[in-house]
Amino acid sequence: MGICTVGDYLLRRLREIGVRHVFGVPGDYQLEFLDQVEAMDGIEWVGNCNELNAAYAADGYGRLNGIAALITTFGVGELSALNGIAGAYAESVPVVSIVGTPATFVVEGKQKVHHTTGDGDFTRAAKCAGEYTVAQAVLSRDNAASEIDRVLRFCWLLKRPVYIMLPSDVAYETIEAPAEPLALLEPSSDPRKLERFAGQARDVLRAARSVALLIGPEIDRYHLTGRLRELAEKIGCPVACLSNAKGVFPEDHDQFIGGYAGRLSDTYVREAIENADCLLAVGTQFTDSVTGGFSQNIDPSRVIALHPTAAAIGDTQYAHVSMKDALLALVSTGVHKPAAITPLLRRRVTGQERAPVRPARLVQERFWEQLQAFLEPGDVVIADQGTSYYGCAELPLPHGCTSRCCGMDCTPSSS
Amino acid sequence: MGICTVGDYLLRRLREIGVRHVFGVPGDYQLEFLDQVEAMDGIEWVGNCNELNAAYAADGYGRLNGIAALITTFGVGELSALNGIAGAYAESVPVVSIVGTPATFVVEGKQKVHHTTGDGDFTRAAKCAGEYTVAQAVLSRDNAASEIDRVLRFCWLLKRPVYIMLPSDVAYETIEAPAEPLALLEPSSDPRKLERFAGQARDVLRAARSVALLIGPEIDRYHLTGRLRELAEKIGCPVACLSNAKGVFPEDHDQFIGGYAGRLSDTYVREAIENADCLLAVGTQFTDSVTGGFSQNIDPSRVIALHPTAAAIGDTQYAHVSMKDALLALVSTGVHKPAAITPLLRRRVTGQERAPVRPARLVQERFWEQLQAFLEPGDVVIADQGTSYYGCAELPLPHGCTSRCCGMDCTPSSS
Repeated sequence: MGICTVGDYLLRRLREIGVRHVFGVPGDYQLEFLDQVEAMDGIEWVGNCNELNAAYAADGYGRLNGIAALITTFGVGELSALNGIAGAYAESVPVVSIVGTPATFVVEGKQKVHHTTGDGDFTRAAKCAGEYTVAQAVLSRDNAASEIDRVLRFCWLLKRPVYIMLPSDVAYETIEAPAEPLALLEPSSDPRKLERFAGQARDVLRAARSVALLIGPEIDRYHLTGRLRELAEKIGCPVACLSNAKGVFPEDHDQFIGGYAGRLSDTYVREAIENADCLLAVGTQFTDSVTGGFSQNIDPSRVIALHPTAAAIGDTQYAHVSMKDALLALVSTGVHKPAAITPLLRRRVTGQERAPVRPARLVQERFWEQLQAFLEPGDVVIADQGTSYYGCAELPLPHGCTSRCCGMDCTPSSS
Repeated sequence: MGICTVGDYLLRRLREIGVRHVFGVPGDYQLEFLDQVEAMDGIEWVGNCNELNAAYAADGYGRLNGIAALITTFGVGELSALNGIAGAYAESVPVVSIVGTPATFVVEGKQKVHHTTGDGDFTRAAKCAGEYTVAQAVLSRDNAASEIDRVLRFCWLLKRPVYIMLPSDVAYETIEAPAEPLALLEPSSDPRKLERFAGQARDVLRAARSVALLIGPEIDRYHLTGRLRELAEKIGCPVACLSNAKGVFPEDHDQFIGGYAGRLSDTYVREAIENADCLLAVGTQFTDSVTGGFSQNIDPSRVIALHPTAAAIGDTQYAHVSMKDALLALVSTGVHKPAAITPLLRRRVTGQERAPVRPARLVQERFWEQLQAFLEPGDVVIADQGTSYYGCAELPLPHGCTSRCCGMDCTPSSS
């Protein structure tokens, strides 16, 4: 890039990894940087009414776009955004949280400036951010290029928020920026462990009389939905999803049987998942919200579990086997176990197909039917925890629909 | 009290120290405790739309009432309130932040329950709270009585927020509650240091050709406005306030000359404060927001400074001399230095006294004049940082008016 300002360097790196919109609220200590944001081609500033809104907007953008950025001001701004950042951390959403801080000399001089606790301690809010981010940096002229690259790599690799403090005087410092593109990291595998995993998985799959596939949200975060579908179609098994992975697999697919939520599942789905001789659990976390309160009745010894950086077959753990490589390995087994499947859409009468009812008492069931009639192919459904989350979990999604639901942190509904 | 539940014990102690209203938002993990709140005589539940609002409401209540309490739920609730708690910390407002947490067995079992980060770490939000509270407790059946008493004492003594985690299963545990009332602590003095302070202060005051008194917010937090007024009237000197202590001294008092804000002060006030031979600075912190950006031109060698737990005369520090004792000591010097004072109300034409103007362009000056016409004796003026803060700083307050303005953290305006 040659010579550029620290602020511009940060923005160019963000743009390079896919950020096209930056969310936030203007505030003292980042007004200088916001001028750079507005001047940057290819990045649009999206102002929000408050920082918590901005953080949720960034979270949603991160889920759909693959990476997001948020700008708040020191202390009083970032603290209002913290709950949204914590949600992104809990739900594995990559959000780059950029906080404009007082100028370096103000911090070093421990001045009693506004937006602080007045005692010269400028680290409190950063310590809070440290609880909910996987990498942190305080930028200076000297470290800006390497620190920006480092935290962005972590954000991409771990799919969780990172935290960048940008002092107001540093934004306009000029640096010699590296010419090469940012080398993003993906989870990698230990070849010997991967080989052993592939061997055991092949044996288990071949021996299984029935196979089922259960999908969790991690598959979407690592952009592996295409590979997952390839695996599902290769095996020919029934596919269900946890409620926080709804829409990750096309709901109009012939193999898709619906959502699985332990005792809250419909009987067909429950039996397919719980009675499978081998259950492929891809990117799932069995939390209370997605299992009807830990009511999943799944024999761990029958599960092949894939996670972003590790896999397991029964109680055999395979650290350093990435989800991507494990999916490829499962496809390569060539196992094909087609099952007789009654897909979700053949078991459900959807809202569109019902005749309008005569005036009657409004009940939940009718409400969700009506809501479903609004859904069109390609829609994005955002369901907040609570009633809307569980209501939406029941809606078969039209082709190309995705949903983004918070199953873990459940923040927006509670704050 | 005899036998009672942990929840009831906490509520009775809060009521005992003056809490009559509890602010917050219902959420999982504190619904049990909220039933106890609703059943408790003499305490009223004030539900808020979100946790940040609730925290600000508690902050305002704490400033006016002397102590406040806030109830939120674990993680997603408390994190949204954190900015308000941080503001109370920065501004020295005693707020008891009570967080309902998952049941003890859930925490000990590191269960993947909602409102958590899903990794079995239930301490993250508490660590954040630790940055902005002066005492913290996780209640159990065994420690509840002593821990509740301990943190409430700290809250009262230090006039800053404290943090109580109340697991949902602990709220209804019964305990043997202590019979004696809660022994609240006040800042105390080392008698020898106090005596030395009194001696030096007497000499300085007697030698001074002119004395002025400048008031900061700490005087109000420690309920010492009566003693302060006694001192001011004894000496007969001009009295000014920082903008974050507006209304602490009656603005219609014959000795009150107005607000002091460094170069932003009017000349009369600036000269009275900056040229005083001896300046009594009581409960002041010279932060950027209240000094026109550190523009105070005050010779530190001429200042007698009183703070809640320490005093100073020039560069002589007196640790362990409380503000209360120091005020009494200053009164006891018997120094009387009446000055010719033109009080604020004789230098200002107030809004009420102006004739209605003909239609004209709305300008800030006219807006604040009109606003002043609304003020009535006994009103409480709440001015948020920014334009309203600086606008209100200029309004002479009618008799008995108080104002509550955030000079340090400046949170509400920025979040």
